Amino acid sequence: MTEIPWRIAIERALTVHHGAPPSRWLQLATVAADGWPSVRTVVFRGFLGDGPILRFTTDLRSAKVAQIDRDSRAEACWMFTETREQFRLAGHLRLIGPDEADPPLVAERSEVWTALPPATRISLLWPEPGAPRADLRRFKVGTPDPHEPPPSFALLLLDPERVDHLDLRAEPHSRVQYQRLGGADEPIEWASLAVNP
Amino acid sequence: MTEIPWRIAIERALTVHHGAPPSRWLQLATVAADGWPSVRTVVFRGFLGDGPILRFTTDLRSAKVAQIDRDSRAEACWMFTETREQFRLAGHLRLIGPDEADPPLVAERSEVWTALPPATRISLLWPEPGAPRADLRRFKVGTPDPHEPPPSFALLLLDPERVDHLDLRAEPHSRVQYQRLGGADEPIEWASLAVNP
Repeated sequence: MTEIPWRIAIERALTVHHGAPPSRWLQLATVAADGWPSVRTVVFRGFLGDGPILRFTTDLRSAKVAQIDRDSRAEACWMFTETREQFRLAGHLRLIGPDEADPPLVAERSEVWTALPPATRISLLWPEPGAPRADLRRFKVGTPDPHEPPPSFALLLLDPERVDHLDLRAEPHSRVQYQRLGGADEPIEWASLAVNP
Repeated sequence: MTEIPWRIAIERALTVHHGAPPSRWLQLATVAADGWPSVRTVVFRGFLGDGPILRFTTDLRSAKVAQIDRDSRAEACWMFTETREQFRLAGHLRLIGPDEADPPLVAERSEVWTALPPATRISLLWPEPGAPRADLRRFKVGTPDPHEPPPSFALLLLDPERVDHLDLRAEPHSRVQYQRLGGADEPIEWASLAVNP
């Protein structure tokens, strides 16, 4: 596997932040059917294997799922407060829900579900996100099986094609843009270009 | 002036964060000409007067400016780490550059320029953002006049129409959506709706 230079930089930043939860929060932008940009915070759930793909999770009933079904293009913005680095990652999203047929991805969805904090797992059983607030009793749900993801749960994968790494510690700031090279069946390589901040 | 409920909530969150710089960083999403979503970190520079409009700044040579000229729709995502609150603010952007004719906005642009940290002011004189990295000598620029914004400097205003406030401290989480009511010449009012998180 070819080394992924920007992944190394992200992992270094995560190490500096000692795994503090806010260092795993990033903002994921998509486009709605009416053309409006849409952006919300998501939690980084690790990379898929040794490659460039980032893992998140989502409730299949949330508004972003309809957006992704229609247009899978996304950009994530990951700002690290301690190291003052920003990563912008543009690529296509893929939803891995209960109908997934590919066995490794079915297994990946289950593993990520099992690794979620119990409070996050419970939220997947709450009433429909974005609908008018339901009665409090409807939020009293049982404890979901940690080994059996519910139908509302999806693994969300971001496969970056372009990455922009801005480092505000340097003076003047440093900024490098990475571009994925190679087709679907070729080994992935990354071209890099230093640009002005 | 009618009270703006979500502005009060943002100001309360800022107070809890004691003005720590990262609490003033938010992510601004726009749409590029090719339809890709685009998102980057911007710094909150206060509200415009007593109203709902948020102030940011930008370099007029940056990629987002061409995007905004073509489609001014934007959504900002503001995540507060201490209070675990997320605000999503959707509305139109407006650039206030050197050709602005409206005297109060011309004055506003100058005031924001003067209030910027000196290091930020210097960055507006650096070589063109996003172009291949220029020679280091080209980053050695003089100290810009704190009272005379350069041609590259724009005040960037976001005028929210919809605001989504998610509060993760509550269990179950609370979430309220605000919608602006009234036309351009009417007093602004905000309808609110509690929804499921």
